[in-house]
Amino acid sequence: MSVLTIERKVLEKNDDVARRNRELFAQHKLFVINLVSSPGSGKTSLLEQTLKHLNGSLRIAVVEGDVQTDFDAQRVAKFNVPVVQIVTNGGCHLEAKLVHDALANFDLKKVDLLVIENVGNLVCPANYDLGEAMKVVVVSTTEGDDKPLKYPGMFHHASVLIVNKIDLVPYVNSNPEVIKQNALRINPALKIFETSCTTTKGIPEWCEWLRSQTKVRDGSK
Amino acid sequence: MSVLTIERKVLEKNDDVARRNRELFAQHKLFVINLVSSPGSGKTSLLEQTLKHLNGSLRIAVVEGDVQTDFDAQRVAKFNVPVVQIVTNGGCHLEAKLVHDALANFDLKKVDLLVIENVGNLVCPANYDLGEAMKVVVVSTTEGDDKPLKYPGMFHHASVLIVNKIDLVPYVNSNPEVIKQNALRINPALKIFETSCTTTKGIPEWCEWLRSQTKVRDGSK
Repeated sequence: MSVLTIERKVLEKNDDVARRNRELFAQHKLFVINLVSSPGSGKTSLLEQTLKHLNGSLRIAVVEGDVQTDFDAQRVAKFNVPVVQIVTNGGCHLEAKLVHDALANFDLKKVDLLVIENVGNLVCPANYDLGEAMKVVVVSTTEGDDKPLKYPGMFHHASVLIVNKIDLVPYVNSNPEVIKQNALRINPALKIFETSCTTTKGIPEWCEWLRSQTKVRDGSK
Repeated sequence: MSVLTIERKVLEKNDDVARRNRELFAQHKLFVINLVSSPGSGKTSLLEQTLKHLNGSLRIAVVEGDVQTDFDAQRVAKFNVPVVQIVTNGGCHLEAKLVHDALANFDLKKVDLLVIENVGNLVCPANYDLGEAMKVVVVSTTEGDDKPLKYPGMFHHASVLIVNKIDLVPYVNSNPEVIKQNALRINPALKIFETSCTTTKGIPEWCEWLRSQTKVRDGSK
């Protein structure tokens, strides 16, 4: 595990760097997802369950983005996968250059799937391309069914929606069908999973889909 | 209820405008809080409970800030209080000028307490003074006990912490004592309340404290 502490800065030409990241990922036949959500929606728990399910059968590496602390990298490092923690020191999103710098810590030839866990923020990371194949947005059932309509930018830019903490539905005023309908109103092309990291419901389906996406790309790897 | 749609812009001299807002609030003996949290922590539900409890005994006005939609203003308007919705159109926080423009919709002489509900974002609103007396940060027990340490800026700038959704503790991996300890490590001066908007636990205490803060200021009003 490495810890990089990088001052927040406005990154010029983020899209140019993202394009270079994307070329690098293609060159190494690497499938890359950018995991985004509000703070506390369960991105890191989902990542832990994903690593538990897929580790050994896929070679996974992780970039953790946080405003402060390396707690998430510590949690991920327990699964013996390569992980780099980016600390933004107050910055509200990851930028392509931060990810580019983090990549130097990996041997990309030996990675099939790279997961970038963004800063917990349902607004700002929507506009920053990191070079990923797709954004995966996580929403917890505890957050209220209206969130896709109130924060449409993220759902517009995402390719996958994960409705997480599905086990808490009996205890909160939430209807996952409404969350999904609201998300599809913003982006009808969204691929949707329902998961619980407590009961593991939906984790196998999510992981099998992830594996299928990787297989598409790793023919000759 | 009024709806203002204002393009996001970088606001120069935010602090100057905040100072002018603060002078205006002092002139009208108005107690003003800036309610901040992640999306889905329960800011609007807390506000609904607060209005239910205090409406009639305090004259309350509300400024709602959202990236998109006027859902929150609609919820608040049911309590027959003056409310202005600011739609930031993608902007990740409220700025002092947006609040200043919204104030023109109120008769400030007839208001004791102004609640500004910020955009759901635990990062960016921390750095924008709106002229409020204090920031009140809401954290839900479903978000994970580590959030104060991972997003310290907001807890550093806040005067009050509300640990919300306390009724969900039996169903999630959360210890409110740890949330509070972590928050106090960042800011030992935090005043703390525990609330549930489902059971109304803690709502009377929070409302009585709010009323006491208002009384301090309304001697001659």
